[in-house]
Amino acid sequence: MRYLITFSYDGTNYQGYQKQKNKCTIQDNIEMNLSKIFNRQILISASGRTDSGVHAYNQKAHFDIDKEIDTEKIRNSLNKLTNNDIYIKRVEKVDDNFHARFDVLEKEYVYKINLGEYNPIDKNFIYQYNKFLDIEKMKEATKYFIGTHNFKAVTKIDSSKNDFVRTIYDIDFNIKESILEITFRGNGFLRYMVRNIVGLLIEVGNGKRKVEEIEIILKSEDRMQSGITAPPEGLYLKNVKYR
Amino acid sequence: MRYLITFSYDGTNYQGYQKQKNKCTIQDNIEMNLSKIFNRQILISASGRTDSGVHAYNQKAHFDIDKEIDTEKIRNSLNKLTNNDIYIKRVEKVDDNFHARFDVLEKEYVYKINLGEYNPIDKNFIYQYNKFLDIEKMKEATKYFIGTHNFKAVTKIDSSKNDFVRTIYDIDFNIKESILEITFRGNGFLRYMVRNIVGLLIEVGNGKRKVEEIEIILKSEDRMQSGITAPPEGLYLKNVKYR
Repeated sequence: MRYLITFSYDGTNYQGYQKQKNKCTIQDNIEMNLSKIFNRQILISASGRTDSGVHAYNQKAHFDIDKEIDTEKIRNSLNKLTNNDIYIKRVEKVDDNFHARFDVLEKEYVYKINLGEYNPIDKNFIYQYNKFLDIEKMKEATKYFIGTHNFKAVTKIDSSKNDFVRTIYDIDFNIKESILEITFRGNGFLRYMVRNIVGLLIEVGNGKRKVEEIEIILKSEDRMQSGITAPPEGLYLKNVKYR
Repeated sequence: MRYLITFSYDGTNYQGYQKQKNKCTIQDNIEMNLSKIFNRQILISASGRTDSGVHAYNQKAHFDIDKEIDTEKIRNSLNKLTNNDIYIKRVEKVDDNFHARFDVLEKEYVYKINLGEYNPIDKNFIYQYNKFLDIEKMKEATKYFIGTHNFKAVTKIDSSKNDFVRTIYDIDFNIKESILEITFRGNGFLRYMVRNIVGLLIEVGNGKRKVEEIEIILKSEDRMQSGITAPPEGLYLKNVKYR
């Protein structure tokens, strides 16, 4: 039987989502506690990884177990055992053929930037840029990212992957009391892709780059042409949708 | 010469505002760095203490130095030196007779409660109550606290003080997306007073106590009659006003 869990986390004190030797990750904490509950090794497969310091409102992962389970009971047990940085929102039965990563139809990320004065209370949850950004110019620059493109110029430089084509459906801007939120919806995102796009948008917003440069950078398919990687604390995996 | 500093902080990792032997406090961090800047011991006097885990948007403190200083330069230097949990918003010259504690006219605190599902991202910044509260009943109960009263029943039980009379000007409720914010304005607040009042309001909101009980409790002037102390992470010192 296959089950899907939906969970949120504060990524501040973790070395990312994905299991790594001798590191403290979100996946480790959930797998360890699921294994404790079922008294056997349980592995989970998520919709994708998030990097160190990145947060999630709705991450999704599936696991298999050879029996029917009481999903609400498991959810409660798991919430008692996992660290308080992690919260299991839902456990539900899914088809045996369902796959939390391969069946993704759409992913939504939000990146939060404080344009106002430094706020120590939000320092791990909103990027403290603390300066003016020309949002109209940033919006204009998004036209080069929206649609189907080869995003090699904005992914991790040493990536061993060779499929860099993704589709971004839209990029939305929302500003409230000097907090800028940029929401990305797409069929998938490469490693560092959102943070590298935000990095370029910031450089457009602060006048370091012209809007038109973005097209040249993206077409170069060269990470070296690109800019800064926006810091992890502003980024949230907001939602994952399946077919 | 006397100077007033206005600063915000994330109190999560501190043992409160006030200097204590062998403990890590906000006051320690600011005094240590002011002393470093001026190359002599500088002591600061705040509007009051905040307890371990409590935050501040606008705490105020004064210090003395025997020369004119460039306030903006000092502010920048101090922000470079202090921990990133603390942010100096303003440094300004004040009258030599001004006192950050004795001249307080009004203090404003806000207490934040999440009535919706547990959110790991806010766990150190909003009290995760995660259950329904009857806000209308809570509002009704505030009538016993507003005005000038002896607040002995809602202060720290072993307090060595003997002046328990304070005036609360108003208590405001604001709810947005399941986050309840209760704002208190008064001429001063005793130790644990806001958190103990919030504790009683929560017990009214969840039906454990009747609205009318609050009057009896407050009039008893007995902490033992009173209820829970709401946890520190929901509390913020929002503002301090002077004559």
